[in-house]
Amino acid sequence: MSTPELTARDLQEILSFTVALAYRAGELIIEGSEVIIQAPPDSESGVLEKKNAVDLVTEYDVRVEELVKKELGSKYPTFGFVGEESYSAGSRPPLTDAPTFCVDPIDGTTNFVHGLPYCCISLGLIYKRRPVLGVVFNPFTGQLFTGAKGQGSFVQQGKNSQPRRLPFAQRPRGLASLSQANIAVEWGSDRSAETMLLKTRSMTRLAGDISAGGKMAHAIKSLGSAALNFCNVAQGGLDIYWEIGCWPWDVCAGIVISQEAGCVITGSHDTFAISSSSPEFGDVTEEILTGRKYIVVRAIGDTNHEKGSEAQKRIIKEFYDAVEDFEP
Amino acid sequence: MSTPELTARDLQEILSFTVALAYRAGELIIEGSEVIIQAPPDSESGVLEKKNAVDLVTEYDVRVEELVKKELGSKYPTFGFVGEESYSAGSRPPLTDAPTFCVDPIDGTTNFVHGLPYCCISLGLIYKRRPVLGVVFNPFTGQLFTGAKGQGSFVQQGKNSQPRRLPFAQRPRGLASLSQANIAVEWGSDRSAETMLLKTRSMTRLAGDISAGGKMAHAIKSLGSAALNFCNVAQGGLDIYWEIGCWPWDVCAGIVISQEAGCVITGSHDTFAISSSSPEFGDVTEEILTGRKYIVVRAIGDTNHEKGSEAQKRIIKEFYDAVEDFEP
Repeated sequence: MSTPELTARDLQEILSFTVALAYRAGELIIEGSEVIIQAPPDSESGVLEKKNAVDLVTEYDVRVEELVKKELGSKYPTFGFVGEESYSAGSRPPLTDAPTFCVDPIDGTTNFVHGLPYCCISLGLIYKRRPVLGVVFNPFTGQLFTGAKGQGSFVQQGKNSQPRRLPFAQRPRGLASLSQANIAVEWGSDRSAETMLLKTRSMTRLAGDISAGGKMAHAIKSLGSAALNFCNVAQGGLDIYWEIGCWPWDVCAGIVISQEAGCVITGSHDTFAISSSSPEFGDVTEEILTGRKYIVVRAIGDTNHEKGSEAQKRIIKEFYDAVEDFEP
Repeated sequence: MSTPELTARDLQEILSFTVALAYRAGELIIEGSEVIIQAPPDSESGVLEKKNAVDLVTEYDVRVEELVKKELGSKYPTFGFVGEESYSAGSRPPLTDAPTFCVDPIDGTTNFVHGLPYCCISLGLIYKRRPVLGVVFNPFTGQLFTGAKGQGSFVQQGKNSQPRRLPFAQRPRGLASLSQANIAVEWGSDRSAETMLLKTRSMTRLAGDISAGGKMAHAIKSLGSAALNFCNVAQGGLDIYWEIGCWPWDVCAGIVISQEAGCVITGSHDTFAISSSSPEFGDVTEEILTGRKYIVVRAIGDTNHEKGSEAQKRIIKEFYDAVEDFEP
C-alpha cells in the first residue's frame, strides 16, 4: 500500500478533527476524575484500595484511548496508531513512513489520580517518521494548544475564545544563562538509590548557588505533565524542560507545538554532542522521538552578537554540562 | 481605640468586597504580565536588562499592592494592613488583636516574571491574631478560591460559574503513607551549599525508593506559588505542601481556605513535636503564622481504625521524620 501524501490542507483538516475529538475525550476525562475523587474508600482503612484506584485510572486511560482510536480509525483508516495503552498491551507496531497517530489519552497521570488540574490529552501525528501535528487539551482548565508543521502553533482558553499565537512574546528575549531560566524537570518513577543520586546532583548543579557548585537557576518547577511542559515552553512561561524517561506519546504533540513556536528540541547528551554542529540540528529524528531523553528550549531572538539558534545551543550546552545523563 | 467586633455577617461582607477587589487587581496583574512579556530586550544582548526586569516586576507588585491598600483603607479605615511591598519598604507594624489585612499582591513571582500562569493575588484577613478570611485569585486561569472562618471554602472558575465547595471529595479518603501522596515542595531562594544539601537529602528521603532510604512519594511537585499550593491541598489535588521561608502574606489567605476545607496546618518540626498532643493542635497561632515554616495536610476522613485528625498527625510525623529542618 502506498503512503498517502499529506498536504498542508490535509493537516488543517486533521487538526480540526482531532481538536473536536480532544474536546469529546476531555468530557470523559472529567467524568473519570469525578469518579475517582468520589470513589468510596474501604470503610475499614479509609484508603481507596490500591487495586481499585489503579483499576479506575487504567479504566479511564483505556476508555479514552479506545474512544480516540476508534474515531481516528474510522475517519483515517489508512493511518497507523501508537497509544500508551495499546503499547503497554503489547501492540508495538514499528514506525513506518505512513501517517501514524501517537496518543497519550491522559498525560500527567499522577495529577489526574489526585485531581490536580495539570493534566491533558495529547494527540500527535507522525508522518515520514517526524512529528507533524499536535493537539494538547487540558479539560480542567479548558486550555487547548495546537500546532501543525509549517502552520504555527496556538493556544486558546475556552472553545469560543480567540486562539493566540505562540510564543506570547512578539520578540522573544535572550537568555544569558540558566540563572535567568524558569526550568521544568520531573522526578519520574525511577527512584533507585543510584538514579536519585544523579537526579539530586543534577538539581544541586542547576539550582545551587556558586558555593554549591551551581548555576543558580531562577526557578525549578516540577509540574507533572510532559505534554503541558512542552506547551509551556512553547508559550514562553518555561524557558527549558528536560526529562529522561518519557515515551513518544508523551512528547509527540508537544514537539510540534513547541517547534512551531520557535523552540529547539534535541535528545540525550550524546545526541546533542554529535548533532549540535550539523546543519540538521533541531530535526527531531526517529532516534530522538523514540529515544526517551528530551530537552526543549524556548524561542530566543537574534541579537547583534548571537543568532537565536546559537543561543539555544549555548543554553543546552550549559544545561547538559550541569546535569547528569542516565538511562531511563 | 477599641477593636471592632467582627460577626459572621461582617466576614461575608468583607469577603464580597475583597473578591471584587481581587478581580480588579487581577486586571492589573494581567496588564503587568503583558508589559513584561513584550518589554523590548536590549538590542545588543537580546536580554531584558536585569534592572529593567526587576523594575517592571517591582513596579506591578507595588501598583497592585497600592491599589489594594488604598481600596481596603477607604472601605475599612480602622483595619490594619500588612503587605509584602510595604513590609519590604520597612513598614513593619506589630500584630495586634485588630483586624489586619495581610496581602501578597503577586504570589508566585518567578512564574509571573516568566509568564507561567500559576500565580495569584492573595488577600487574607487576620483577626485576634488568627487568619479568618482568605481570597486567592489566579487572573490567568480565572480560578478564585475563597474561605471565611466557620463558613467553608469554595472555588469557582470564572465570575459567573457556580462556586464548588472544598474539598472536592465528599468523603475525603485516607492516606496510608507518603507513598500515596502528591506532595508540593519548593526550592525557594536559599541555594547555599549547606541548604541545598539539606533540601536534596529531604527530596531523596521523600522521593527515593527503599534502596535510596526513601518513602517513595507518589509524586513530588514544585509549582511556585505558596498561596495556590495551599488552595490545591484544600481542593484535594495535593495531599501535602511543605515549605520553609514563606512570609505570612504568602500563606494567610491559603491557611483559612485550607482550614475550612478540613486541612490541618502547623509550623516547624519543633512546633509539631511540642503541640501535636495538645487539644489546641491545629490552631494557627501567631507564632505559626509568622514562623516562616509551614506544613499543610489535606482533609482525611475518619475510619473504624483512626480518626481523620489522627491520620493527619501520623502523616505529618512521617513527613517530618523524612525531611530536614533548617532556618529560612
